[in-house]
Amino acid sequence: MKLYESLAAEVEGQVARGVLLEGEKLPSVRQASQHRKLSISTVLRAYSLLESKGVIESRPQSGYFVRARPRLARRPATPAPALILSSEVDVSRLVLSTLRTIRSQGAVPLGSPYPDPAPFPAARISQYANAIARRRHWSVMDDLPPGNPHLIRQIARRHMEHGLAVDPSEIIVTVGATEAINLCLQAVARPGDTVAVESPTFYAMLHAIERMGMRALEVPTDPRDGIDVAALRGILTRQRVAAVMVMPNFQNPLGFCMPDVRKRELVALLADYDIPAIENCVYDELYYGDSHPSPLKTWDTHGLVLHCSSFSKSLTSNYRIGWALAGRYAAQVEKLKFLNTLSTPSLPQLAIADYLQNDGYDRHLRQVRKGYTQRARMMAAAVLRFFPAGTRVSEPQGGYVLWVELAGGVDAMRLYTRALDHGITVGPGHMFSARGSWVNCIRLNYSYPWTAETEEALRTLGRLVAALGA
Amino acid sequence: MKLYESLAAEVEGQVARGVLLEGEKLPSVRQASQHRKLSISTVLRAYSLLESKGVIESRPQSGYFVRARPRLARRPATPAPALILSSEVDVSRLVLSTLRTIRSQGAVPLGSPYPDPAPFPAARISQYANAIARRRHWSVMDDLPPGNPHLIRQIARRHMEHGLAVDPSEIIVTVGATEAINLCLQAVARPGDTVAVESPTFYAMLHAIERMGMRALEVPTDPRDGIDVAALRGILTRQRVAAVMVMPNFQNPLGFCMPDVRKRELVALLADYDIPAIENCVYDELYYGDSHPSPLKTWDTHGLVLHCSSFSKSLTSNYRIGWALAGRYAAQVEKLKFLNTLSTPSLPQLAIADYLQNDGYDRHLRQVRKGYTQRARMMAAAVLRFFPAGTRVSEPQGGYVLWVELAGGVDAMRLYTRALDHGITVGPGHMFSARGSWVNCIRLNYSYPWTAETEEALRTLGRLVAALGA
Repeated sequence: MKLYESLAAEVEGQVARGVLLEGEKLPSVRQASQHRKLSISTVLRAYSLLESKGVIESRPQSGYFVRARPRLARRPATPAPALILSSEVDVSRLVLSTLRTIRSQGAVPLGSPYPDPAPFPAARISQYANAIARRRHWSVMDDLPPGNPHLIRQIARRHMEHGLAVDPSEIIVTVGATEAINLCLQAVARPGDTVAVESPTFYAMLHAIERMGMRALEVPTDPRDGIDVAALRGILTRQRVAAVMVMPNFQNPLGFCMPDVRKRELVALLADYDIPAIENCVYDELYYGDSHPSPLKTWDTHGLVLHCSSFSKSLTSNYRIGWALAGRYAAQVEKLKFLNTLSTPSLPQLAIADYLQNDGYDRHLRQVRKGYTQRARMMAAAVLRFFPAGTRVSEPQGGYVLWVELAGGVDAMRLYTRALDHGITVGPGHMFSARGSWVNCIRLNYSYPWTAETEEALRTLGRLVAALGA
Repeated sequence: MKLYESLAAEVEGQVARGVLLEGEKLPSVRQASQHRKLSISTVLRAYSLLESKGVIESRPQSGYFVRARPRLARRPATPAPALILSSEVDVSRLVLSTLRTIRSQGAVPLGSPYPDPAPFPAARISQYANAIARRRHWSVMDDLPPGNPHLIRQIARRHMEHGLAVDPSEIIVTVGATEAINLCLQAVARPGDTVAVESPTFYAMLHAIERMGMRALEVPTDPRDGIDVAALRGILTRQRVAAVMVMPNFQNPLGFCMPDVRKRELVALLADYDIPAIENCVYDELYYGDSHPSPLKTWDTHGLVLHCSSFSKSLTSNYRIGWALAGRYAAQVEKLKFLNTLSTPSLPQLAIADYLQNDGYDRHLRQVRKGYTQRARMMAAAVLRFFPAGTRVSEPQGGYVLWVELAGGVDAMRLYTRALDHGITVGPGHMFSARGSWVNCIRLNYSYPWTAETEEALRTLGRLVAALGA
């Protein structure tokens, strides 16, 4: 390899790994020449090779810059009224079988929806549990719904710290966010009702709809701004919708954070039509920006927002403790909790409450967020590097998943099957729609440490996509 | 107090406390005279006083015996066809508010449905959990439904030891028996369907029916033999029943254990009509007899019995781990589990599995059973001693609750309210029917250590019943 090729490869690698971000200026030819001890002409040849490959671009009087990469900026068109149909939902079998297969693979779990549990302070929380179990005996009686008062206080305190004043009597502790979402949906809608969701939709929402025999109406959703409030308004003028289910912050799979102005518009629209919204906020603590995002609940003055969250994505998945802030539906959700699982176990509630009160939750989160922010860039860069031209990727603002639109209309289930032969898993787009949309998309998990294996798996995936698209 | 009165009071006390059982022979007059250093005539006067009070009876050529006490042997009449109506169910608000009130009372929790957690080996199990948490990290992914394989193996092994050969692939781990019952019912019946239950019914069954918007049909139930299979057959010939829900062993609240011949009849009847049965077997480990009772599942050759159980009543309620053996509905129940709470937390499953494999579950159970057996007698005796004449009590064969039919048609909710003023709680019969039956009955918990306070509480209850009946 010649000197200029070697320099070009090195720069390309840095772009691919996200060290150099799009739009960032490269060192000037003169600087590069000095620092690298290379001739001006060698640097110039390297930069022009990179330019011809589309990695960088020269801007007159400014220098060389990393080129913008293709992303999911396309705003889905609002379907014509005749096309706005709700669908029966039957995705859970696909999701469960996919998750099982993903689990059985030893390889890099790119297809997993769950965060790497390794950074969780599990041992610390377990020590608290152990101390509590020794101190006294707990009966099912002790923490009947709404839940353990100590934990409820800690949850309210945390919401308060993030600017959401919460009435503790509105909090109901649940078995993960899954139960919270189920109870909230059951509280506000009946079997046969239509529920508006984002598109693509996190399948946990579709599961709740499926469980209750309701219908899903998939509303156009912008990959940067979230659910199309204008389109939703149009729908509400034409048909009855029992509830809206959204993930305003770091949506799974798109990773967007709705701008506050859009959140306010959505909450106002719901108030106009007196329609409840269920928001799933399990990734709120995993923001990449400067501050914790605001949930829809922040602007809810009518008690119409049912806020669902959990500790399973940010603190520990050993116990699956979640909660709902159920607004004006709190009494109904509390009763449904009692009917559904009687009570959430006391010991895990107390152990988490003790940890929240005494230990370094924020320190733990800072570290996790730092890693995710970095790996989000690395994952996007690697996909754009290894996958065929025309591949588009999302720009996650938080959480730990990347959404990838495959070039050439490659079917994600075919990729999923081929990838399994190589011990690699991906989350096929089929899981994110009840009506068969997003079949050319995949979701990738970047919560695990970035290794040579990760990079090799992405290279293999890129090859498989290219072969399928050929 | 004269000598003969003192002897009579002592014997009466022993009968009341269950030291002397009904039908047991008293020491002969001669023996009593020798052992007590009392004259023959003093003993004779004491015995005849007891005879006049109805405590003992003399049998010619045999001696004196403790008299049989009034019990719930009455077999409820089969209602005429026109009366067999199913009811909408709405008991959960009453039950939840009652349980909450019971919790808030510091006194003897006679009204609690839950066992005293003090004998549970909670600290031991927590140590296992702690060791596991230290050893490795667990993801939600690891124990997707049906559940943790190690725990499933232990559950299957235990069933096998009790004579029930179980296919481990039929076992689904749940959040307590409550979730198991809910999932099983949802798997076999639709909203609006009619479900046959015992009468009185354990309200957990009614809750599952209420949650799904189904209807309950309360079938006559013998306090000794369980659900009236002939009456049920009559009902099935006349109307469609989607499922039957029973507690064949140590039913809450009656405490009976269905004779095996009745269980076989019931299972055969269900097979004739191809109707699934959900059996709640949470008290099976708490038998007073020589051996573990057989669940209906033992005779189920058609996969129609959905067996639900949990560790919360016999081992630990700290984690609320239950399971379902869902027969031919296993795949459906597994899917519903995934939809309802996603997965049961791994750490508690593993900790319980480790305990079952390594520790003294049977030793723990022997001790608990011994205490319950003894206190069942003491509780029945105390109620018959302190409550007005005409009071009837159940004869629990296992578990830890006594069912009491109040004399004089006293309303249990009125007693409940009055008793609260004295810091005493009872389980009002109103919770055990969707159609307002059993309003003159209460359920009493005897799992807690027997103290002077217990006896005093029962004495107070007796006074209150007498006052309400006057």
